[in-house]
Amino acid sequence: MDLQKKTMEELNRKEVSEFKSMSKFPLVIILDQVRSGLNVGSVFRTADAFALEAIVCVGYTPIPPHREILKTALGSCDSVSWQYFETIEQAISFWRNKHYKIWALEQTKGSIPMDQMEINGDPTVLILGNEVTGVSDEALQLCDGCWEITQYGTKHSLNVAVSAGMAIYQWVQKSIHGQQKSF
Amino acid sequence: MDLQKKTMEELNRKEVSEFKSMSKFPLVIILDQVRSGLNVGSVFRTADAFALEAIVCVGYTPIPPHREILKTALGSCDSVSWQYFETIEQAISFWRNKHYKIWALEQTKGSIPMDQMEINGDPTVLILGNEVTGVSDEALQLCDGCWEITQYGTKHSLNVAVSAGMAIYQWVQKSIHGQQKSF
Repeated sequence: MDLQKKTMEELNRKEVSEFKSMSKFPLVIILDQVRSGLNVGSVFRTADAFALEAIVCVGYTPIPPHREILKTALGSCDSVSWQYFETIEQAISFWRNKHYKIWALEQTKGSIPMDQMEINGDPTVLILGNEVTGVSDEALQLCDGCWEITQYGTKHSLNVAVSAGMAIYQWVQKSIHGQQKSF
Repeated sequence: MDLQKKTMEELNRKEVSEFKSMSKFPLVIILDQVRSGLNVGSVFRTADAFALEAIVCVGYTPIPPHREILKTALGSCDSVSWQYFETIEQAISFWRNKHYKIWALEQTKGSIPMDQMEINGDPTVLILGNEVTGVSDEALQLCDGCWEITQYGTKHSLNVAVSAGMAIYQWVQKSIHGQQKSF
């Protein structure tokens, strides 16, 4: 097995202009009242890596340009499309009108374990909430349902950028490989 | 669908003493020359959530107690077992002697896309490297192989704590659900 690192040429990454015009995975991440720009920037970086459609910042979620975001986004704010809404109602309404299903990543009484989600690449919005309080009750009431990451440890929850990464990875894999082969 | 958030009781999280004595997923994360304590703490939090066997800090990777680690680990340094080695050779040798397979998360010429990995829950070490330079060439030469997260965007790589999260999630899911059902 060749253990030599790939060069940037071999990785074959896209230019920003190429990225902007390429077809995207129809997954939109709403960041609702996320406090830390470091977390927001990290989600931008993941959204670039998986060629997602857009990031939506809501309420007091910091938006680019912002010192903390720039530190972790490492330039991905230039490639990933994003928008801002003052309220979660406005954000959800915008994407519902485009016929996106609206899901939240939250541990609710009726949430579906993320590995059991039925995903086929249909247009989807996934809402992630505040670092401490999670997705707001107001947002939850406007969703089609919740996905939950099954956890086995001592802590209440995962870091918001890490859990976004897991959900994005899972959604893209299931979209590519098809539901029948997914776990 | 019930959209009400689960309480801490309903989440049924473990006490630290319970966590320490429970059987773990035999996945060990080596952090080799990771610069940021924020990233280290975030990996601790994920390792707690997925009941991993241990985290191994190598070289100048910060270890608990450390201001940055505590900020993102949120107490998971008390539950997750960890150890420190000065060199990657020492760390790999320790786990090889326990018959763990040694993999790195790195984009190399012979790396296997992470969704195609054959995983059956056998004892595994996964090495993650420095935020800028990745897993060192010295470490790579001591590995059984590399996993790569397929990416579609403009940037070279993902945040180390986010990519650790994706790899841990994937490994645990495949271990639970079995290879035959995985994508």
